[in-house]
Amino acid sequence: MNYRMILYIMGQILKGVGLFMLLPIIVGFIYGEEHIVSSFGIPFIALMTVSFLLTAKKPKNNSIFSIEGFVSVAASWIMMSVIGAVPFVISGEIPNFADALFETVSGFTTTGATILGDVESMSKSCLFWRAFTHWIGGMGILMFVLAIMSSNDSRTMHMMRAECAGPKAGKLVSKSRFSARILYGIYISLTVLEIIMLLFGGMPLYDSIIHACSSAGTGGFSIWGDSIAHYNSVYIEMVIAVFIILFGVNFNLYYYLLIKKFSLAFKNEEVRTYFGVIITATVIVTINTMKVFDSAGEALRHSFFMVASAITSAGFATTDTSQFPVFSQTLLTLLMFVGSCAGSTGGGMKVSRILILFKTGIKELKYIVNPRAVATVKMDGKPVENDVVRGVSSYFILFMIILAFSLLLITLDSYSIEESASAVITCMNNIGFGVGRFGTAGNFGGLTSFSKIILCFDMLIGRLEIYPLIMLFASKKH
Amino acid sequence: MNYRMILYIMGQILKGVGLFMLLPIIVGFIYGEEHIVSSFGIPFIALMTVSFLLTAKKPKNNSIFSIEGFVSVAASWIMMSVIGAVPFVISGEIPNFADALFETVSGFTTTGATILGDVESMSKSCLFWRAFTHWIGGMGILMFVLAIMSSNDSRTMHMMRAECAGPKAGKLVSKSRFSARILYGIYISLTVLEIIMLLFGGMPLYDSIIHACSSAGTGGFSIWGDSIAHYNSVYIEMVIAVFIILFGVNFNLYYYLLIKKFSLAFKNEEVRTYFGVIITATVIVTINTMKVFDSAGEALRHSFFMVASAITSAGFATTDTSQFPVFSQTLLTLLMFVGSCAGSTGGGMKVSRILILFKTGIKELKYIVNPRAVATVKMDGKPVENDVVRGVSSYFILFMIILAFSLLLITLDSYSIEESASAVITCMNNIGFGVGRFGTAGNFGGLTSFSKIILCFDMLIGRLEIYPLIMLFASKKH
Repeated sequence: MNYRMILYIMGQILKGVGLFMLLPIIVGFIYGEEHIVSSFGIPFIALMTVSFLLTAKKPKNNSIFSIEGFVSVAASWIMMSVIGAVPFVISGEIPNFADALFETVSGFTTTGATILGDVESMSKSCLFWRAFTHWIGGMGILMFVLAIMSSNDSRTMHMMRAECAGPKAGKLVSKSRFSARILYGIYISLTVLEIIMLLFGGMPLYDSIIHACSSAGTGGFSIWGDSIAHYNSVYIEMVIAVFIILFGVNFNLYYYLLIKKFSLAFKNEEVRTYFGVIITATVIVTINTMKVFDSAGEALRHSFFMVASAITSAGFATTDTSQFPVFSQTLLTLLMFVGSCAGSTGGGMKVSRILILFKTGIKELKYIVNPRAVATVKMDGKPVENDVVRGVSSYFILFMIILAFSLLLITLDSYSIEESASAVITCMNNIGFGVGRFGTAGNFGGLTSFSKIILCFDMLIGRLEIYPLIMLFASKKH
Repeated sequence: MNYRMILYIMGQILKGVGLFMLLPIIVGFIYGEEHIVSSFGIPFIALMTVSFLLTAKKPKNNSIFSIEGFVSVAASWIMMSVIGAVPFVISGEIPNFADALFETVSGFTTTGATILGDVESMSKSCLFWRAFTHWIGGMGILMFVLAIMSSNDSRTMHMMRAECAGPKAGKLVSKSRFSARILYGIYISLTVLEIIMLLFGGMPLYDSIIHACSSAGTGGFSIWGDSIAHYNSVYIEMVIAVFIILFGVNFNLYYYLLIKKFSLAFKNEEVRTYFGVIITATVIVTINTMKVFDSAGEALRHSFFMVASAITSAGFATTDTSQFPVFSQTLLTLLMFVGSCAGSTGGGMKVSRILILFKTGIKELKYIVNPRAVATVKMDGKPVENDVVRGVSSYFILFMIILAFSLLLITLDSYSIEESASAVITCMNNIGFGVGRFGTAGNFGGLTSFSKIILCFDMLIGRLEIYPLIMLFASKKH
């Protein structure tokens, strides 16, 4: 393994995180928060120094392979989570390091699960940093580094594949650097558009920026204890619901729209299924929750929002879902597994994987009836390569194995099976809320540090889609 | 599809069920229960008449293929469940037909989940029939029909494969009729041995027969509300625990022992893993439940029994597991998924499938690191065919998809997510107890008829391993 090159890449990423930390410093200055000098200043200087040392000399041998790509991505994400947690600890707003780490991992992985009981007492700069980690993690820090630095192309593809979500990672254009720039361009444009739309609804600028960042990464951190319900505005809820759904669409689609390849954009089977599932689930949950709300309109309003929040993995809330019938709660939990589209900022298993899984099952049934018949799994009318089908099955198997072991370890804590399972499911799928004490009205603060570390691992497993993290811990043999 | 031949096979099976019904009639005569004349006599005569009509003329075209094998097995199991439920209804001991059907499906599929709140008030003949359905379902009714009738060999293999558990069904000897006879011979011998061992422990003859039948099928029906705990005898508990573990072993192993191929028997990876998991889980649960019981010995006693009961899918109980720490409850639930060995009477996913799933996951990780490396999944030191590996992955995927949809439908009932999930898991894996109101101290009587039918389907899906049942409902196209 080319360790020298991995360290060089990590140095680049530290620089990226350092640059991003300038933003909460600016926020702190605007609001006159004195603690930012120490809480963000110290980690900023540390980041820049270490980054300078690591990237001062470019390695002679800059060839990297798949394994180096995976390992550097996993190591970078762990490192930036540890560093990203420092401001919370120094400022004293989350004094316990395990708590601060949980919050930061939850931020970068766009999970949005919080250990905070009283989020509203935090300083503006820390709340900004917390929401901004969602924005960074949504598109990916490596993608950002790729976008700003010039790079060897075959090399960067390995990293892009390790950080990008979905069963297949492709480049939009021949150079991955330009792909990264296009994707970040779309990402920034959509975020700015959401800020403007929220301002129109009467949301203050600071709140708009926070919630747009949080939506963009489909993260779910808010600045209010009751999340989006705080504004009690149908307009704001609809803007956020629509935007998290948009951020859950494969970004390639926006690129196709930009270059006016409309047929490519609208014939995409994954995207059509994604919208189909959202509409169907909204109708079902609305009917099922009708008795809980005063009117059908209210039921539709909250059902649409919560379906969007669950499937995109945003994890925002407009209502306490523990009031929902058990059927709707279960449906929302299943939607968390479905997740959003590949190549989006959303979490979950991804719609395309679920589609391939269903089709694999149907193919097997056909095979059982007639072993001589040639059955293939098709997506968008074209046969899916066997490697991809096998990869998706294996991904699902590994996901469920990790889920089972995590659940077992979490049950050593003092929560019920239901609560424990919901915590693991919500973290592995990067959603943010579970049931019971982990519901939309609760938080993860009561867990032991051991459980928090397990869940941090699960969140990273979910965001980086298993392989990079396992490679990091199992790579010694190579 | 050769419908004529399917009806002929169903006729044979009805005859088999009819013959088996003579046993509860004998039990009824011994105990002077008058209702047996109507409750068992009527279905017996009906069975024999229909069977005579269906099998009077052997079809000229007796060729059947995979699809006919699957369809006839699925149709037979549904039919015999419906008929097997009649005595409970006529006798008035389970007046509601949905309840009686649930109880009979639970019997034949060796699940052991009951809708009865007060099992002890039932008549001796009905209790016998109830436990005996476990014995019939454990090895399989088709296997029995194969053992007693002379048959075309290529034809019967299709049926054997449809009813036998595990990723691969093989024949012991070249003729499947003889294989079936050998397997039933071993099955009867082990059952008689258990009856004798239980008699030694001072258990009455009737009770011994019931519990031996119930153990043999790894079913779990008892004649007492508090199951095996009723006898409060360490000896009886150990006999039952050891026998359910033995019935959970691949029966081929006993055949190898009989023909003195000891190395084939003991080098079997699945069997070694099975025993390894039982020992490891017993140690872990013992340590975890130490604080619940008065002594380490008591903890070991109940932990060993409940681990055996969960992994073999017997579902007997010596203690109320809701008193166990959440960790142990979760571990027991995970063991239910693992299940026993392929080719045994036990349920669950089967140890060999779980082994192949784990190895598939590891293979994928190796592939991700180095796509050019040739990684194969091995069992017993030999490479597993790609078809089998793919089949196991697909089985797991279909199993989880069916589990998710069943869960969603069950949550329309008035139970919590945790209870609903436990009901689906326990039924699909053919165990018999869940958590909460479905725990070892509860029963399934409170469910709506709709939920009971869904769970009946799940139990059949689990016992017949998905494909036959889906074929039955999807086979119109062929």
